[in-house]
Amino acid sequence: MSREPFAVRLAAAGRELGSALCLGLDPTGCRDAAEVERFCATMLEAALPHIVAVKPNLAFFEQHGSEGLRVLERVRGMVPESRLLILDAKRSDIGNTAEAYARALFDVWGADAVTVNPLLGRDAVEPFLARAGTAALILARTSNPSAADFLEAPLQDGRPLYRLIVERALGWSGAAQIGFVVGATSATAIAEVRGLAPAAPLLLPGVGAQGGDLEAAVIAGLDATGGGIIVPVSRGITGAADPRAAAAELCRRIEAVRAVASRS
Amino acid sequence: MSREPFAVRLAAAGRELGSALCLGLDPTGCRDAAEVERFCATMLEAALPHIVAVKPNLAFFEQHGSEGLRVLERVRGMVPESRLLILDAKRSDIGNTAEAYARALFDVWGADAVTVNPLLGRDAVEPFLARAGTAALILARTSNPSAADFLEAPLQDGRPLYRLIVERALGWSGAAQIGFVVGATSATAIAEVRGLAPAAPLLLPGVGAQGGDLEAAVIAGLDATGGGIIVPVSRGITGAADPRAAAAELCRRIEAVRAVASRS
Repeated sequence: MSREPFAVRLAAAGRELGSALCLGLDPTGCRDAAEVERFCATMLEAALPHIVAVKPNLAFFEQHGSEGLRVLERVRGMVPESRLLILDAKRSDIGNTAEAYARALFDVWGADAVTVNPLLGRDAVEPFLARAGTAALILARTSNPSAADFLEAPLQDGRPLYRLIVERALGWSGAAQIGFVVGATSATAIAEVRGLAPAAPLLLPGVGAQGGDLEAAVIAGLDATGGGIIVPVSRGITGAADPRAAAAELCRRIEAVRAVASRS
Repeated sequence: MSREPFAVRLAAAGRELGSALCLGLDPTGCRDAAEVERFCATMLEAALPHIVAVKPNLAFFEQHGSEGLRVLERVRGMVPESRLLILDAKRSDIGNTAEAYARALFDVWGADAVTVNPLLGRDAVEPFLARAGTAALILARTSNPSAADFLEAPLQDGRPLYRLIVERALGWSGAAQIGFVVGATSATAIAEVRGLAPAAPLLLPGVGAQGGDLEAAVIAGLDATGGGIIVPVSRGITGAADPRAAAAELCRRIEAVRAVASRS
């Protein structure tokens, strides 16, 4: 099946749905796989009118063993074609092993995009760039405090490591299918990555519970067309008294920034 | 259940079994999960007399979806208590997510040790260091050609990134449960990591198909007691005409080096 590039699909879906919001599915407190499934179904149903994408984090399914992964397979079936499925797996391994991970995430579990850890370099990432219409969202500068340990370590020429990651990745074959993960906790890093990669989709986690400033992150991340960003929110929606209202409000705040930015 | 530290268990098992060889289970060419299960059962049965540990790589199970993970759960039951189970998953994520991965790998799937990608820094690794008797084997210098892209990138003070990773990790809480993954393709890197971490278990992948020199890697990796290494081999055993004979010969070659080293 030939498909438009992921960035084009994201732009089209964003326009049609009027949203750059992504529902993060992090079922943390569930006692068993059945409860995970109910959680996902409930939250999807609530947030669906206001989201462009859904991002399950595989860790919270894996902690229930193979039963948890069966739930992930059923959750895939609950996500309509009109929304993008981002599997947050942060996988990374050498060549033929990375190919197996790519098969699992794209071909078996039906991802439109996946998060990828770039530490092992080019030959570990390129297997995630081999399917038309999909994207590999490469960790650049994550939202956790310890991101400073290595991702911000200064290299010989003064650049932080995350900048080398972005610059190198843009030279790899299949680079048109690359996006980046940049924590909403650092608008400066988002602006820097956007400057280096004007057309790449940016996933901006860390809004809400992790302290990222939604408006600052969106302004820093927008591309020249006023798009190119995905804002995943987990606890800010699923932990709200009214998840649907929370999603609506987050979507509205993002669109308000986009409206102002597109007028300027 | 209180258990001896992983390094102590590795040393005891190595002495008792006379082996530092680890069977890598990378079921690459199987058509379905049932075939993966037969492959694992056959190879385990063949190699068991000559190995101290078993290392399934999760990618090759995940590519068969939740059915593949069910097979992993049954393979766990095939590995006797006397052998160490290393789950090669190279996971990495921020704090509470890393905790969920640790629960999956240690509590659900029964790992004695897991491989961990350190890119996100301290708070992403420490959740893997919270269980007595287990170990987190942190990627230092991997065996793939692109390891040079980032792991060997020179920092401001000239150190390659992998050296900073090792030095920083040894200062984290739970550091006694840390080991490192260093590709057998670079005896120099192995010797350097051993110098920095005299007591850490070292996992040395890349012997055989990837071109690592077995004897050079073993000599460089041995600790002061003539132990502290795990040599995983996948295709070199599972692709051999006689897997049991191949495992016996690899075990013999490793023990020959250890015998010479312990006399010098």
